[in-house]
Amino acid sequence: MTKFSFTFHRPDPNSRARLGRLETPHGVVETPAFIFCATKAAIKGVTSEQMQAEGTQFILSNTYHLMLQPGSDIIHKAGGLHKFMGWKGPMLTDSGGFQIFSLGHGSVAEEIKGRRNSNRPRTMLKITEEGAKFKSYINGQTYLLTPERSVQIQRELGPDFVVVLDECTPFHVDKRYTARSMHMSHRWAVRSLEEFRRHDDDTQKLYGILQGGVYEDLRLEACDFVNNQDFFGHAVGGSLGASKSQMYDVVAMTMANLREDRPVHLLGIGGVQDIFNGVRHGIDTFDCVHPTRLARHGGALVRPENNPKPAREHIVLTNSQFREDYTPIEPDCSCHTCRNYTKAYLHHLLKAQELAAYTLITLHNVNFMNRLLAAVRQGIADKNLDTVEKSWVPEKT
Amino acid sequence: MTKFSFTFHRPDPNSRARLGRLETPHGVVETPAFIFCATKAAIKGVTSEQMQAEGTQFILSNTYHLMLQPGSDIIHKAGGLHKFMGWKGPMLTDSGGFQIFSLGHGSVAEEIKGRRNSNRPRTMLKITEEGAKFKSYINGQTYLLTPERSVQIQRELGPDFVVVLDECTPFHVDKRYTARSMHMSHRWAVRSLEEFRRHDDDTQKLYGILQGGVYEDLRLEACDFVNNQDFFGHAVGGSLGASKSQMYDVVAMTMANLREDRPVHLLGIGGVQDIFNGVRHGIDTFDCVHPTRLARHGGALVRPENNPKPAREHIVLTNSQFREDYTPIEPDCSCHTCRNYTKAYLHHLLKAQELAAYTLITLHNVNFMNRLLAAVRQGIADKNLDTVEKSWVPEKT
Repeated sequence: MTKFSFTFHRPDPNSRARLGRLETPHGVVETPAFIFCATKAAIKGVTSEQMQAEGTQFILSNTYHLMLQPGSDIIHKAGGLHKFMGWKGPMLTDSGGFQIFSLGHGSVAEEIKGRRNSNRPRTMLKITEEGAKFKSYINGQTYLLTPERSVQIQRELGPDFVVVLDECTPFHVDKRYTARSMHMSHRWAVRSLEEFRRHDDDTQKLYGILQGGVYEDLRLEACDFVNNQDFFGHAVGGSLGASKSQMYDVVAMTMANLREDRPVHLLGIGGVQDIFNGVRHGIDTFDCVHPTRLARHGGALVRPENNPKPAREHIVLTNSQFREDYTPIEPDCSCHTCRNYTKAYLHHLLKAQELAAYTLITLHNVNFMNRLLAAVRQGIADKNLDTVEKSWVPEKT
Repeated sequence: MTKFSFTFHRPDPNSRARLGRLETPHGVVETPAFIFCATKAAIKGVTSEQMQAEGTQFILSNTYHLMLQPGSDIIHKAGGLHKFMGWKGPMLTDSGGFQIFSLGHGSVAEEIKGRRNSNRPRTMLKITEEGAKFKSYINGQTYLLTPERSVQIQRELGPDFVVVLDECTPFHVDKRYTARSMHMSHRWAVRSLEEFRRHDDDTQKLYGILQGGVYEDLRLEACDFVNNQDFFGHAVGGSLGASKSQMYDVVAMTMANLREDRPVHLLGIGGVQDIFNGVRHGIDTFDCVHPTRLARHGGALVRPENNPKPAREHIVLTNSQFREDYTPIEPDCSCHTCRNYTKAYLHHLLKAQELAAYTLITLHNVNFMNRLLAAVRQGIADKNLDTVEKSWVPEKT
């Protein structure tokens, strides 16, 4: 009997939003769920135990960072990522592609969101049919990451879910490049599957990635491709356009054409409104560095009713208005930070550049995302997602 | 009935080492005990809850830092330090003097240990009979800290224990300066006591400080002075000499002449060997930034049997020898870090500059100090402090 399974149901026949149950050897994920980024085998500023205490179900780490430091061999010898970093729940690694191409093109992260400014050093050397050649940002050493090698590394890292290597095309390339790149990514996906099957012992499952940029015909072709390959799940990747509405269109056209029996992950998206949109189209999991990165810049996610600026999704605790605010970030929040500390204290810690600031605000944002997804699941179950959305998504003014 | 009391007994009549019980409104401290430095109302990198989970009894904060940022008024309005920073146990604040004079003279911290190199900016402007005038390192604003003002600020901060303002004389000044300064500190102490009594509501107790540098006659005069003043406890301060042996001499001559019914704190000392030495002379509490600062530089305190270099009190986890060391820092340690993580993981986190590195190593060092002091107390109770010392103090090679 397999240790993995995915089942779902749609309480509301008029909506594609679904409640899922993703079983893994490391426990069950109730979906829709948020996946937090433990980029280098650590959630920045908090321990695995603290993540769990704030209700986290699912985390991911980045193959690109871990293959360079400490190296997948070290993690393999340590007994895999779960044991290495003390995380007991389900876990995913990406393929390494996103970061390679992100650094290669400047910054894909910015590009896929339509912003073109970037002055990062380019460490990507060459993309060929064989794979991607790049330089380590740590020691300048040259690496060749092939689809096979990515699967091998991810096998060594040992997460529950593994993702195929793809070329993550930026927003500014044209349709011809996007199409050519997508076809190569599809060939890479077939090679990834072959490599994955060679050693498949049912301890991991493989996700395929959907490319195709903002072009409907390419997205449909990508859907056809992954639907007919032996993937456990699908991840919607590539450029999602230059605006929220374009991103929502890409998600809509993709989700309308994907087979329904597999879990679907939306890569790199974690805005509150974006999550409601994704869920309505049937997205099961989301990931984004936003909640934890925002925390390290003093930003705390709050529901509109807890925000003096109700049109925003967060408050900035460095603002002087919080200097004498002796209330928690959110009075109705169950996180360690809101139960024990005031905004005045967090404001002080940020001003004093105390490490505890980053820890405490991260704990809140993690709890916020987990509460948000729990509310989303409840809304789907109760068929009142619209009402739930109103209490979580700021009204644009 | 007072909420404060100090009682002690000496199990071994041939030793001045004693077991004490320091009662406060925020709980009991079993002494000898270590006081951790929450300099700016936060232990760097860990939460108050984590401190408690690692067995911490007692912490302190620094008046100097807090009066500048966020200001004692903010902390007072928050309900005092305990509530502001979520610390439920006993707490002490210093007078602010140490940092003012430390910055004034370059660095007293270095000076009192006999090292004279320092290139910090001097922000101390003037010491007069009235008090110390200094510039804020944050915004350049001028402050006058008088003995009265220090007690007032510490009343606003609201810890259990308050310390008188003194001039902390550096090592390089001569005996004449040391004597003159000590006499002024004594006059300041009387003013502190008067200010303290003016609003004494039995929610705080006052510690007097012993100055006198390395000069026996001055130390004896200082002992006579504090013995005859209405202090709750005594803190051994000032320059402790240029070497360990000189420090041990100063501690010995001071402790031999202090009245025995009051708790005695040794300021700024936290080396493992130094703690055994202090305890043998009857010291009850110690504080030092060393365990937590060391952690942020990748240093983990270990007992000699757990150290590949048994002549040292710590290991440096950035060293490449730990890259593939899949064992905890100490196999017999009960801290969160040793129960869940290996040296290889901590080495990786340090190399990757992950914030979790500082948190996890700090947790270990905090637990180490608490275990050390628990072992010291057990050794005193069992009259085998020598045996205990052998298993904690490296043999010098």
